[in-house]
Amino acid sequence: MVNYTSFFSRVAENLQGSAIRRMGMMALRDPDLISFAPGHPDPVTFAWDDFRQISDELLASRDRTVLQYGLTRGLPSLIDAIVQIVGTRGVKTTGNEVLVTTGSQQGLDLLGRILIDPGDVVLVELPAYTGATTAFRNAGAALVGVHQEEDGVDLDDLDAVVQRERLAGRRVKFLYVVPNFQNPTGLLIGQAKRRRLLEWANQRNVLIVEDDPYGSLYFEDSATAADTRPIKAEDADGRVIYLSSFSKTLAPGFRVGWIVASEPLISNLDLTKQTQDLFTGALDQRIVFEAWKRGVLDRQLPKLRAYYQHKRDVMERALEAGLADLVSWPEPRGGFFLWVSLPRHISADEILPRAIEHKVIYVAGSPFFVDGTGRNLLRLSFSLPPVARIEEGIGRLTRLISEEVARQPEPPRV
Amino acid sequence: MVNYTSFFSRVAENLQGSAIRRMGMMALRDPDLISFAPGHPDPVTFAWDDFRQISDELLASRDRTVLQYGLTRGLPSLIDAIVQIVGTRGVKTTGNEVLVTTGSQQGLDLLGRILIDPGDVVLVELPAYTGATTAFRNAGAALVGVHQEEDGVDLDDLDAVVQRERLAGRRVKFLYVVPNFQNPTGLLIGQAKRRRLLEWANQRNVLIVEDDPYGSLYFEDSATAADTRPIKAEDADGRVIYLSSFSKTLAPGFRVGWIVASEPLISNLDLTKQTQDLFTGALDQRIVFEAWKRGVLDRQLPKLRAYYQHKRDVMERALEAGLADLVSWPEPRGGFFLWVSLPRHISADEILPRAIEHKVIYVAGSPFFVDGTGRNLLRLSFSLPPVARIEEGIGRLTRLISEEVARQPEPPRV
Repeated sequence: MVNYTSFFSRVAENLQGSAIRRMGMMALRDPDLISFAPGHPDPVTFAWDDFRQISDELLASRDRTVLQYGLTRGLPSLIDAIVQIVGTRGVKTTGNEVLVTTGSQQGLDLLGRILIDPGDVVLVELPAYTGATTAFRNAGAALVGVHQEEDGVDLDDLDAVVQRERLAGRRVKFLYVVPNFQNPTGLLIGQAKRRRLLEWANQRNVLIVEDDPYGSLYFEDSATAADTRPIKAEDADGRVIYLSSFSKTLAPGFRVGWIVASEPLISNLDLTKQTQDLFTGALDQRIVFEAWKRGVLDRQLPKLRAYYQHKRDVMERALEAGLADLVSWPEPRGGFFLWVSLPRHISADEILPRAIEHKVIYVAGSPFFVDGTGRNLLRLSFSLPPVARIEEGIGRLTRLISEEVARQPEPPRV
Repeated sequence: MVNYTSFFSRVAENLQGSAIRRMGMMALRDPDLISFAPGHPDPVTFAWDDFRQISDELLASRDRTVLQYGLTRGLPSLIDAIVQIVGTRGVKTTGNEVLVTTGSQQGLDLLGRILIDPGDVVLVELPAYTGATTAFRNAGAALVGVHQEEDGVDLDDLDAVVQRERLAGRRVKFLYVVPNFQNPTGLLIGQAKRRRLLEWANQRNVLIVEDDPYGSLYFEDSATAADTRPIKAEDADGRVIYLSSFSKTLAPGFRVGWIVASEPLISNLDLTKQTQDLFTGALDQRIVFEAWKRGVLDRQLPKLRAYYQHKRDVMERALEAGLADLVSWPEPRGGFFLWVSLPRHISADEILPRAIEHKVIYVAGSPFFVDGTGRNLLRLSFSLPPVARIEEGIGRLTRLISEEVARQPEPPRV
């Protein structure tokens, strides 16, 4: 057999996988396991009949573009649709500032390739989405964490971090943020803070990568569309690179996301995508476009908001019933996640094997922290399991955590 | 506006686009132009009704996996199907040596990332497929060309090149070859030469990346399945990384390709794909799998062989009628391409603007040569245009080349 050691690149030697994916895929193998791990939308909500009707018409048409090679930039009609979709979010743009991507994940990867040289600093929130941090790390980034407050990233810490990194001679390329219902915390960056963040980025000459998969999924009992207005909406200088996706609103199986950014960035991203996968699936783009054009997306959104709000309520009620004295979490005003703090001395990583014995899983918090903290935190996703399974799963979690607290008495504070 | 210069990575500064894609996409804009540029399959051949039936059943089933996030490695049933498909080609493998990719292009890009450090040598044929050379170059490879003979890569030259590069202190990572109906030459590497190539690679400790999009599309008047048996079929040592795709046999719009390689390679490719696009489109994989399972692929192949053979005949007859004295080409025994030599003093690049005036385009040969040669060569793809358009287009090309030969008398040989 070949010994591959001498063939692997330095990138390959340092590859890291995603903790979310490891945990997320575990549930596929054991149907008895109740999984709060993956941030998957609930397929019960998908517009199956519309997709069926659309795909039937597209394939009956024998329109060659439905199954032929297409433009790297994306299906032109879908690009126009994206211009309108982001327009409703307050982002004024034109088609030449849009790139259709094979899911948002591809957007993150492409950005890593065109922006990061090994050793360049990328600023991320503490905690931050591991799909992004892994992509940037694999591109060679030095990831540096910035603390979060309740209304999002701590601007004083951010500024201090940038000064420190620059003094140390490192190049700071961009700040990565998920302002709407962040993965994993569910937090929303306040509108006032978004404006200050953009001012800060302009002053300090740092780019902002704004990742917005959940913005349309605000919960109407506690948030409005205005609360989710992107940072990009105020960006007059090409400072912000905005990513979003149809994965959480239509379906992830289609793999259709997009980037809005200034033309010089888009044209480099386009060249990179060209060698990465030539173009995004033609049938997928057409189905997504037609679903938008026929109003399927607009009809879905209010339903999804109510649906996931209800699941959040179910999960919160179950946690309050069983664990109110032991855990806490910031109430999410949208999105898919509850971010739970265990008693300080309990490690979410260490108790995971026993969670699996109890047939319940979550994603432990520490992989979301690039500084290695977050041991007593965990992410629960309420989006996928049916209501009864949420209740049952939180029951299992309650038994687990109660046992662990009994087993591990809190050490005396020093 | 932000000045992005200080933000771009070194990769971004040196990005190159694909000449094929530039030319290929031009035809989309001008319907009067007859394009022999892109290597697109003919959508008339697609199994539209089968795809329609399959997608209708899949979406009616509401089986969540059809539109949900999936495994990075690929849909397990499709992986099993790929094991069987490559089995019919003589490649014995198991599911843990397969990665489903978002088209073969993604496979090339992933290989670039896990195998190439900046400055590493990748050996390619003269000429070679630009989608591959661009991906490897963007990963930092030093591309070094190896001459071809009629039965494929020149082994003496290959060995001399490797010795020279190693003496110069460079690491030689792999040889990239398209043994079946190569893009752009249409050539087939002989079976005896394949065996010697594999022996050589084992002796010299060089990997082989074998890209096989066209192997099933041999022309029955001059080739058999046995002629297309992959190098990988004889590989007992994990020396060969084999890529193929459904793009040329089912449809490119689905973006489903695959890699067969040893497990250590596959697991690194999997981690890299995870950050690149998480997984390949779920609906696409299901449709492709069902098309295989229901025998659609097997029914398509003999039809496609006859169909493209006929188009090759039409193009060859038209060239013989108009240009027999001025141009020559090796007869392709499969695939999509005719590789045409113009008179030595005529540059295919230079006459391209006048070809466009004549409303016909092709891909000039020089971008396929990493050593900058090939000025008097051009690639004609006969796969996409209808028969009448092939005849009309070759008529236009005949007028163009005849004019050029009259305009540029051959310089006296020295």
